[in-house]
Amino acid sequence: MSENNETSPFSLEQAMQAHLDNLTKPKGSLGKLENYALTLARIQRKVPPRIRKKAVFVFAGDHGITQEGVSLYPPEVTAQMVHNFMGGGAAINVFARHCGFDVYAVDAGVQADFPSSWQSTSQKEYSDIFSSGQASPRFIPAKIVRGTRNFYKEPALTETEFTACLEKGKELARCAHEHSYDLVALGDMGIGNTSSAAAMAVAFGFNPEDIIDRGTGISDTMLAHKYKVITEAVSHFSHQVSMADPAQIGAFFGGAELVMTAGFILGLEGKNIACVIDGFPITSAALLAYKMNPRITDWLFAGHRSHVKGHGPLLNYLGLDPIVQLDMRLGEGTGAVIGGFILSLSTAIANEMASFSQAGVSTAPQHEQNY
Amino acid sequence: MSENNETSPFSLEQAMQAHLDNLTKPKGSLGKLENYALTLARIQRKVPPRIRKKAVFVFAGDHGITQEGVSLYPPEVTAQMVHNFMGGGAAINVFARHCGFDVYAVDAGVQADFPSSWQSTSQKEYSDIFSSGQASPRFIPAKIVRGTRNFYKEPALTETEFTACLEKGKELARCAHEHSYDLVALGDMGIGNTSSAAAMAVAFGFNPEDIIDRGTGISDTMLAHKYKVITEAVSHFSHQVSMADPAQIGAFFGGAELVMTAGFILGLEGKNIACVIDGFPITSAALLAYKMNPRITDWLFAGHRSHVKGHGPLLNYLGLDPIVQLDMRLGEGTGAVIGGFILSLSTAIANEMASFSQAGVSTAPQHEQNY
Repeated sequence: MSENNETSPFSLEQAMQAHLDNLTKPKGSLGKLENYALTLARIQRKVPPRIRKKAVFVFAGDHGITQEGVSLYPPEVTAQMVHNFMGGGAAINVFARHCGFDVYAVDAGVQADFPSSWQSTSQKEYSDIFSSGQASPRFIPAKIVRGTRNFYKEPALTETEFTACLEKGKELARCAHEHSYDLVALGDMGIGNTSSAAAMAVAFGFNPEDIIDRGTGISDTMLAHKYKVITEAVSHFSHQVSMADPAQIGAFFGGAELVMTAGFILGLEGKNIACVIDGFPITSAALLAYKMNPRITDWLFAGHRSHVKGHGPLLNYLGLDPIVQLDMRLGEGTGAVIGGFILSLSTAIANEMASFSQAGVSTAPQHEQNY
Repeated sequence: MSENNETSPFSLEQAMQAHLDNLTKPKGSLGKLENYALTLARIQRKVPPRIRKKAVFVFAGDHGITQEGVSLYPPEVTAQMVHNFMGGGAAINVFARHCGFDVYAVDAGVQADFPSSWQSTSQKEYSDIFSSGQASPRFIPAKIVRGTRNFYKEPALTETEFTACLEKGKELARCAHEHSYDLVALGDMGIGNTSSAAAMAVAFGFNPEDIIDRGTGISDTMLAHKYKVITEAVSHFSHQVSMADPAQIGAFFGGAELVMTAGFILGLEGKNIACVIDGFPITSAALLAYKMNPRITDWLFAGHRSHVKGHGPLLNYLGLDPIVQLDMRLGEGTGAVIGGFILSLSTAIANEMASFSQAGVSTAPQHEQNY
């Protein structure tokens, strides 16, 4: 470790491993937390990595597919829950408060208007919203559609709408980078979006039996109906357009909030920001993003594995090992925030623990190296 | 819910379930977190339960069995690590800081003297230590022995020492209760203590093949030696004394820190405090406590399942489902604190989320009921 950076034979991973091994604990004894710290070092290109500023983005949108009776809750609940996010009373607000995340509620495609008071006149640019002194939660008006079309009958989004969702997501990723977030968690709110997510996964080749599940808790009869709606819609689609084009799949089945999430994930490329995904809908958005750019898994973590049947197969396909498994199936980013908090513990360890050398003779502590 | 308490047909669990079902989320969608909240309501006899004050107790002791060459680290490391706890540089300090736990380092049986400055002259009573304005970490002088005897040759503790450890643990549990801790996490520090823990488990009837593991990371050769030492010691013991008496098993093999932990767990009976246990050594202490009073599992949670082979079988036997599984094997209470933090999220949900009735018409919110 005495070489200067230019001639150092140490790769970044080796330097990070050496850093971890020099802390006052048996080698490797923090298990997955050490792996997380290594991955975060690679993402941030820094030894040790740091997580100083964390946010959860909850992307909200409505779904025309709810007209087919696939969901337990009425579509109005999407907008009501956005109000709940802004009022601080939803599960994600509670988790974010205790785990140290800012909350951004993103209107990607909700079929309702939100109070103009949520956005002051000076906040015309997203950047203003991010940098405003306003306490979390903050509202991001990014509405591309007022709910999607019913994909059982027609494409949910036009090509133009799909592209607009994707680009808006990328723009928000740039904002997160410009405002120094080290770690972002992504969550969803959209009545009907497990149907949209399941249809995307099935269109991408997953077995419907492995994927289609009860969402917020529908009955056996509704589940059979949901299965029929989704498989028929995908079958219909496969006769119309190319199954090989992720953009076409995304437009046909995608909720605005899921496509915007995919855009956000794609937009993180080269930004040195770690991204924690949540449950089944957000992971289907990650699948869409992956089909457009397989490098995205380099900066992704799976916050949890949810109770939803289809989540495990998607995570396996993406090669992501969930941080916790608590049988949750709430969405909103709740699993992502718990996982993200544990990631932040791994960097806290790397930055705050005493090293053997600090406790030892005269070796100078080597605190931080940039690459 | 309109009945008064005396005639209410609702049990405490039912009242807690109704409380959870009235929060703005699909029923049951927080999975295990809802189960944790239900269990905590039962432990605290309160709907909703609250976690306002959390502490981790790290019980430290030395082990005569290290004379047999069963550990990678020299015994001096136990005392060095207690210094590290008090300096705030150990992994448990980092986790406790970020998860909101006070840290108490308990000298149960370390073979070293600690600075008198760690305990002011006014702090002669444990109660003074708990209530002192001194910031965490705090030191608790509870030394019963200066290291145990080598259980390969003789009982590790005399009957008197065993009883003193147990009673001291109970006294500390009383202090935790008097000073209003809602949740305690228990951790261990003791070079050689996985051998002590494994010998206890084997003496209690567990298969040595399922239990004996590498501790801090010993080689194959050392592992074979450790296996031989432990199985021979238990065999020798079984010819001397009653295998049916948990106190004799605890005294013969127990580290002072493990027996004191068992006493602490036993001492929590009737205190309405939730207790989160850590890895293999602490779980062996819980096993000892369980053999003395099987009701202890009513107030126990398993913070994590560690990477140590024997931990899973002990948790299964005690019927405890680990909250996280991160392949950690560090001890100190690190897994207990992560698990305890997730428990505190479950009560935060129960106390801070908006209810459907709050978001609804005119139903009066029913915030807190005591039973």
